[in-house]
Amino acid sequence: MTIMLALAFAWASGAQELSNFARGGQKPIVSPDIQGDSVTFSLKADYATVVKLSGSWMPNPWGGTIDMTRGENNVWSVKIPLPEPEIYTYNFVVDGVAVNDPQNVLVQRDGTRYLSMLIVPGARTENYVEAKTHGTVSHPWYQSDILGYSRRLTVYTPYGYENSPKKKYPVLYLLHGAGGDEEAWISMGRTAQILDNLIEKGLAEPMIVVMPNGNPGQQAARTLNIPEKAINWRSEENRDAYVKSLCTEIVPFIEKNFRVIPKPSSRAIAGLSMGGGHTISASNLYPELFDYICPLSAAGRSTPEQAAALKKAGVKLYFLACGSSDFLFEGSKTLDKTLTEQGLEHTFFVSEGGHTWANWRLYLNTFAPLLFK
Amino acid sequence: MTIMLALAFAWASGAQELSNFARGGQKPIVSPDIQGDSVTFSLKADYATVVKLSGSWMPNPWGGTIDMTRGENNVWSVKIPLPEPEIYTYNFVVDGVAVNDPQNVLVQRDGTRYLSMLIVPGARTENYVEAKTHGTVSHPWYQSDILGYSRRLTVYTPYGYENSPKKKYPVLYLLHGAGGDEEAWISMGRTAQILDNLIEKGLAEPMIVVMPNGNPGQQAARTLNIPEKAINWRSEENRDAYVKSLCTEIVPFIEKNFRVIPKPSSRAIAGLSMGGGHTISASNLYPELFDYICPLSAAGRSTPEQAAALKKAGVKLYFLACGSSDFLFEGSKTLDKTLTEQGLEHTFFVSEGGHTWANWRLYLNTFAPLLFK
Repeated sequence: MTIMLALAFAWASGAQELSNFARGGQKPIVSPDIQGDSVTFSLKADYATVVKLSGSWMPNPWGGTIDMTRGENNVWSVKIPLPEPEIYTYNFVVDGVAVNDPQNVLVQRDGTRYLSMLIVPGARTENYVEAKTHGTVSHPWYQSDILGYSRRLTVYTPYGYENSPKKKYPVLYLLHGAGGDEEAWISMGRTAQILDNLIEKGLAEPMIVVMPNGNPGQQAARTLNIPEKAINWRSEENRDAYVKSLCTEIVPFIEKNFRVIPKPSSRAIAGLSMGGGHTISASNLYPELFDYICPLSAAGRSTPEQAAALKKAGVKLYFLACGSSDFLFEGSKTLDKTLTEQGLEHTFFVSEGGHTWANWRLYLNTFAPLLFK
Repeated sequence: MTIMLALAFAWASGAQELSNFARGGQKPIVSPDIQGDSVTFSLKADYATVVKLSGSWMPNPWGGTIDMTRGENNVWSVKIPLPEPEIYTYNFVVDGVAVNDPQNVLVQRDGTRYLSMLIVPGARTENYVEAKTHGTVSHPWYQSDILGYSRRLTVYTPYGYENSPKKKYPVLYLLHGAGGDEEAWISMGRTAQILDNLIEKGLAEPMIVVMPNGNPGQQAARTLNIPEKAINWRSEENRDAYVKSLCTEIVPFIEKNFRVIPKPSSRAIAGLSMGGGHTISASNLYPELFDYICPLSAAGRSTPEQAAALKKAGVKLYFLACGSSDFLFEGSKTLDKTLTEQGLEHTFFVSEGGHTWANWRLYLNTFAPLLFK
């Protein structure tokens, strides 16, 4: 009987190990709580003086906050109109310190910061939530002789991959930005959900998506050991070391270990911000490797000669995307102009907003259906 | 030039999307900061009245805290003697509210709670940190006709799996406890690091480790949609539905999709708490399926007849483990007695402490070298 009571307690606490802080016996708090056109956020804070809410839907997410009100049992809350459908991040600010929502299991990691997520349902987000069928996300390690150590990848294989042992797939190489790592596109970008939904609906070709770690001094996300044999990747002679590793080590590793179609017409490369720069560099250094090239909010440029070389190589899709208020928008306009002048057929997809994951999810959801067709 | 400055800023912020809260220009805070025999924790909190530290190494982690002191620039800190080598979780308490350490990228998820990690180096933790070589962690989905929907698994394949296409491997099925899910053993249990290290040192056989989701009403960790076709798993007739899915659906799925040795002598089952109960149930329902059985801090029991059936089936290792102050210790002693009375050779491994991940990591590190030999 003692055992059963103790077990019931372990269940009720909803956690496997003993909590670091006491939990009361009050009724459970639901947060965020979407009801109709509004959403309520709640936090228990017994001794706080001021509790605020900060969310990425606010006009000024850097400093803007909404005051929360102390209610029964010191549960602070605020009810706001539901923002437009999108995935947002938010946190509470308790006496000046940012706090995640302890009731919300949905959390994104952005560098060292873990942020609670609010998913507002709607047409914009319908491909960002779980589909009925699911691909497999795996984390294999490849050996980089160029960078001098083994490195972790994230690989998405589409639903059906395991059950179709003779089928071969095209591959999208999808690159993160500065501050990101091999988990960024999966966590913040919702890549698995977007591809699951697009493929399930017949809108995108079943494809493999490879998400490497684009930081040449980093072995993997969240590992703190620094590789002993790492090259000096900051030196000028090594400036393209990661892009070279991508094109001459990661691509062959994937083509050896997964069932892929090893042809330019079945290879795409896309990346955001710094990863957009890597996309541009990779396509310029290896113009015949990828037939589909998608720089997103990209930090990078091409010379007229490089654009001409890509045209000659017979690129099938060049999809350039940027937000109209992005601080890199001028650079994208310059690249658009260079491509136009060299007669390289391309799409310049301009969205509202700036340098945000809201845009990068939209771009992936937009260009993935255009690949390999 | 504008572009380059903006980019430099994005780098410096260490994050891809704009922060939800303002960041100052002060020198970066390092926390936790291990120096010699002490560790210092720091948190910037401009408007807080009381800031405390709570850690799982404390004698009373439920309520015990240490006061932190306000220093220059409103950075609160406390320096404490380094605890014994182990992996701990901790958080700050700002005016009564638990807060993660925003400087620390190492975070464990326990149910809905995200907790900062402190890894104290030493003999106890040497297999808990990154090895030189790494297996692959993947998340395939299997279809459960018993439970009525598709479900997510975590699978570890050892280093070398991809490069040895003819080699076949034994499999350990490793089950979580109440409040956990298919990510618990990877996140809190450090399974990939422990297996990587044990295999690299030649202490354990290269093996595949399969970590299912043991909650029959849950499709996957952190997905919030409830499967439409789920059976009523709370009903008495369905009480063993998950264990049946494990033994008659997951085992065949793994043996079809991975290169395994499909024999009892190459199958092990282990689990903690509720997962220890599942381990006991599975071995009792299917006594010939697993030759290696390891209930850890287990919630479950066996009848004399069941123990006799396991003896008859020729079990190669029965490794029962529990902490001497665990609230389930009496149950483990009862099981030990039943096994002894039925003449089933077994190990009863009793450690210090209670129902904690410190013990479950220790148990995995202890029994994994005994498997498949």
